[in-house]
Amino acid sequence: MNHYPASIRNLIHHMARLPGIGEKTAERLSLHLLYAADKAVEELARSILEVKQKVRLCSRCFSLSDNELCSICSNPARDVAVVCVVEQPGDMVAIEKSGAFHGHYHILSGVLSPLSGVGPDDIRIRELLARAATGEVREVILATGTSVEGESTAAYIAGRLEALPVSVTRIAAGVPMGGDLKYVDQVTLKKAMESRRVVGSTHPR
Amino acid sequence: MNHYPASIRNLIHHMARLPGIGEKTAERLSLHLLYAADKAVEELARSILEVKQKVRLCSRCFSLSDNELCSICSNPARDVAVVCVVEQPGDMVAIEKSGAFHGHYHILSGVLSPLSGVGPDDIRIRELLARAATGEVREVILATGTSVEGESTAAYIAGRLEALPVSVTRIAAGVPMGGDLKYVDQVTLKKAMESRRVVGSTHPR
Repeated sequence: MNHYPASIRNLIHHMARLPGIGEKTAERLSLHLLYAADKAVEELARSILEVKQKVRLCSRCFSLSDNELCSICSNPARDVAVVCVVEQPGDMVAIEKSGAFHGHYHILSGVLSPLSGVGPDDIRIRELLARAATGEVREVILATGTSVEGESTAAYIAGRLEALPVSVTRIAAGVPMGGDLKYVDQVTLKKAMESRRVVGSTHPR
Repeated sequence: MNHYPASIRNLIHHMARLPGIGEKTAERLSLHLLYAADKAVEELARSILEVKQKVRLCSRCFSLSDNELCSICSNPARDVAVVCVVEQPGDMVAIEKSGAFHGHYHILSGVLSPLSGVGPDDIRIRELLARAATGEVREVILATGTSVEGESTAAYIAGRLEALPVSVTRIAAGVPMGGDLKYVDQVTLKKAMESRRVVGSTHPR
């Protein structure tokens, strides 16, 4: 990299600190920016600064937002009685993309992880309990990941919600759609087997 | 992407316009920047703007530089009598990395390409001829690529330099080092066969 002028070396250095961007890619991107239109480059730099200045957490669900309330919390068409609990904003976006959910969210901003020193007070469980206690919420869907931490966080929250007048559900685990059974891991297959459902209506389980 | 706030969508949009960065990667990078330290993000944005403001072309060799003369042209230790002609600044960097050359460079900023409407006046051939005519240059090494355009550009420049008191050489083409012969294409093998050299000193060719 020593063969470029200092300002290009500097850009390559900062680009290479992004996740998944190595020295080679950083060099390619930097040279691209060098030859790109002034306006496009300024817009990129401005959007990088703006994202840090403008984005904050929604005061109700703690998802990412440009305003006090996020676009979902401020949308009167969404069902306020159903709250889906996820680990991170990205999980919320994934569920939104699926189009399968029309309620509200609650972003924990993490999972319980005693080994990393993350306890119940470090993620937004207290805020969830407060929302569930208002009487506005009918169902809490636990949509944390199916990792060990995700599962134990879901179990912990389910326990804490027991005293409140809400029904608590957990998203289904099983074989992914479009998946070939021989490539599915054993833990998933075991889970899918245990959670099997009766097909048809003649012999209800 | 509609599920993120506008400022994040905006950043993802601009990131995804970079070469080799798709929507998914742009989303990942944008979320990374959102959570990264303020200082690191500001430095990245600043280095992007600076590269456009500061970098210009060296007035002698036309490589990228922060100053009037690039670091190579202003280095008295480099041999001014040997000039290596390349297509783009990236080619110069590649040769510098090899450590095999200690002379000066001349960046054409392109290759002759009649189909794309690029003629001799569109790349810096006139400037090369002027440098060669000063009497300061002893050898011109043609290091344009081995593509059709690169080869014909080298041939054209060699013809134009014939009248001047400089020796003109072309970098060798052949089988890449560490290459397995069965994976080398036929044109390269033919070239390597034609350009074969006598090994040892008993039978000089």
